[in-house]
Amino acid sequence: MISFDNIQQAQARIKPFIHQTPIFSSALLNTWLGHDIFFKAECLQKVGAFKARGGCNAVAALVEQGQKNPALKPRHIVANSSGNHAQAVAWSAQQFNIPATIYMPSNVSKVKAQATKSYGAEIILADQRAEVDAMVEEASKKAGTFWIPPYDDDDVIAGQGTVIAEALTQPVSSDSTNQNNQPHYDAIFAPCGGGGLISGSFIASRQLSPTTQVIGVEPASGNDASRSRQTGTILRLADTPATLADGARTLSISARTFHFIKQLDGFFEVEEAAILYWSQWLAHLLKLRIEPTSAMTMDGVMQWLNIQPATTRKTILVVLSGGNIDQQTSQLIWQQNHLSTLPAEKYS
Amino acid sequence: MISFDNIQQAQARIKPFIHQTPIFSSALLNTWLGHDIFFKAECLQKVGAFKARGGCNAVAALVEQGQKNPALKPRHIVANSSGNHAQAVAWSAQQFNIPATIYMPSNVSKVKAQATKSYGAEIILADQRAEVDAMVEEASKKAGTFWIPPYDDDDVIAGQGTVIAEALTQPVSSDSTNQNNQPHYDAIFAPCGGGGLISGSFIASRQLSPTTQVIGVEPASGNDASRSRQTGTILRLADTPATLADGARTLSISARTFHFIKQLDGFFEVEEAAILYWSQWLAHLLKLRIEPTSAMTMDGVMQWLNIQPATTRKTILVVLSGGNIDQQTSQLIWQQNHLSTLPAEKYS
Repeated sequence: MISFDNIQQAQARIKPFIHQTPIFSSALLNTWLGHDIFFKAECLQKVGAFKARGGCNAVAALVEQGQKNPALKPRHIVANSSGNHAQAVAWSAQQFNIPATIYMPSNVSKVKAQATKSYGAEIILADQRAEVDAMVEEASKKAGTFWIPPYDDDDVIAGQGTVIAEALTQPVSSDSTNQNNQPHYDAIFAPCGGGGLISGSFIASRQLSPTTQVIGVEPASGNDASRSRQTGTILRLADTPATLADGARTLSISARTFHFIKQLDGFFEVEEAAILYWSQWLAHLLKLRIEPTSAMTMDGVMQWLNIQPATTRKTILVVLSGGNIDQQTSQLIWQQNHLSTLPAEKYS
Repeated sequence: MISFDNIQQAQARIKPFIHQTPIFSSALLNTWLGHDIFFKAECLQKVGAFKARGGCNAVAALVEQGQKNPALKPRHIVANSSGNHAQAVAWSAQQFNIPATIYMPSNVSKVKAQATKSYGAEIILADQRAEVDAMVEEASKKAGTFWIPPYDDDDVIAGQGTVIAEALTQPVSSDSTNQNNQPHYDAIFAPCGGGGLISGSFIASRQLSPTTQVIGVEPASGNDASRSRQTGTILRLADTPATLADGARTLSISARTFHFIKQLDGFFEVEEAAILYWSQWLAHLLKLRIEPTSAMTMDGVMQWLNIQPATTRKTILVVLSGGNIDQQTSQLIWQQNHLSTLPAEKYS
């Protein structure tokens, strides 16, 4: 069972490769809401997403294992993904000079495939997702070839946990705290797809700040994790959900991540309209490129604030998980004007 | 005549109020181009633009003057602008608890007016630009009322010069330099509207790094500064140019800024298609919200690289001047897909 020790080991392993990402806040947003919201900008991480942490830790762990036992030396890394995990694994393998092959559905956007290729990986395309999955499984049977899964893996989860391990010892400045102050967070919010990020966040937070609530957020149209929490058994969606939050389109969480997701202090579902709304507003307020999956989290914050006693000023940390948005999704985000409705108006 | 001393004084004055903004680079872009390009992220500055520096320095200088001579104490600050200068002056006055009034054309976007109001300023709208200008002039005649112009002012220019004064003593990290290394920049690129930023950049760079070229960039459809350089006299556009680069829609530079613009090492004009192209690509590569006026600068970089000896690897600093983009402009930026054409393809 993964523990905080694994996250500390991951921190040491990946430190030479990844960015310590900044934490930002918006003076306007904090004035309007009457709370202090801090944003951990993993969109500024290598490959534009927290996924670089998990991928890097998994590859580094394989390299260590190979140093102890040459028969287990990784000579080829494979993964199947059309999202940030693809770029993360390609980039991670490149850091250790290990050849990588990424299997992708052939409808992947040119810009994502190109980025993955630029990190030195070979790309193999297949028409069907099932075909992609079968090919990576077949490839991983070869001696010296290792498959890095997107979330159902202890090393990957430990890597993702370094986001919060880093944030909880990171001084921040804001208009309402002193310069270079390490705040106590009342709650941490992160999006939930397969559950790697929220599981790692939970482990790190419980160790470093036990009274901080850890809260997951998911699109209502792909609410498998939320329903799994309600029913106590892992629910699997029949089809890829039609949500703008493409980082949360996973069909199900895993037993490994459900163990932690069950223990979360809260979990919120977000409608598509609110995902669009915060995709515009967070970009506008923070001047960052923020994936819909990350922007979604702010509606969870608003739902949570709505059930808190009104008199207390809360300090909140939001994980901006990534910033990779293709042109089609950008076009959808900016089609209509949501900036004409202020957050205080929308949630009054 | 403004000198580097004024910029140093400005640095000391505005330090408690403004952000030291980070410098970013894109490993992919640098790999593709074979050069090292660094981006000074003034889009992450207070009010989302470098304009906070000039506004803050101008107001702080007035406050100092009032401390020496109570008859000149600023009791009311006014400005006329529908752009970043409006928010900058409102925010700057607020830092010193001085009431501010901003005169704006009535077609200003709700989100910009709201932000200006949130910084505590009173907003007065008028239908015509001429009316706005007349009102601010009338207001500024009152004793104790001071008008902060957007660029034709020594204190404003000195404030804008702190961007480069800061950047030229700021360590950066990149894939091809050591960690925390202060690079020597071969060239600095900044957009040119009224010329405040490029003038301040020129003064700071000549002092701190005399061999660094300082280069201005302007939309081809509003090329008054470029033509002024060519003819040797200040040209004034008859109408507001129809460019996406709204920070460069000024009708003319001033004698004060022309003095420095004349001395620049280069000046490039950029077509609208290239402004759109880099608005998408820089957002994608840097994960920052970058105004078209800032993105435009990259086409100037590409034009300049194109006339350099091909064998030398260049180190370049680009000022990302701001990140305030309304929904309508965002929609225009993301309407068509420019991410399918890689920079190396476009400029081959």
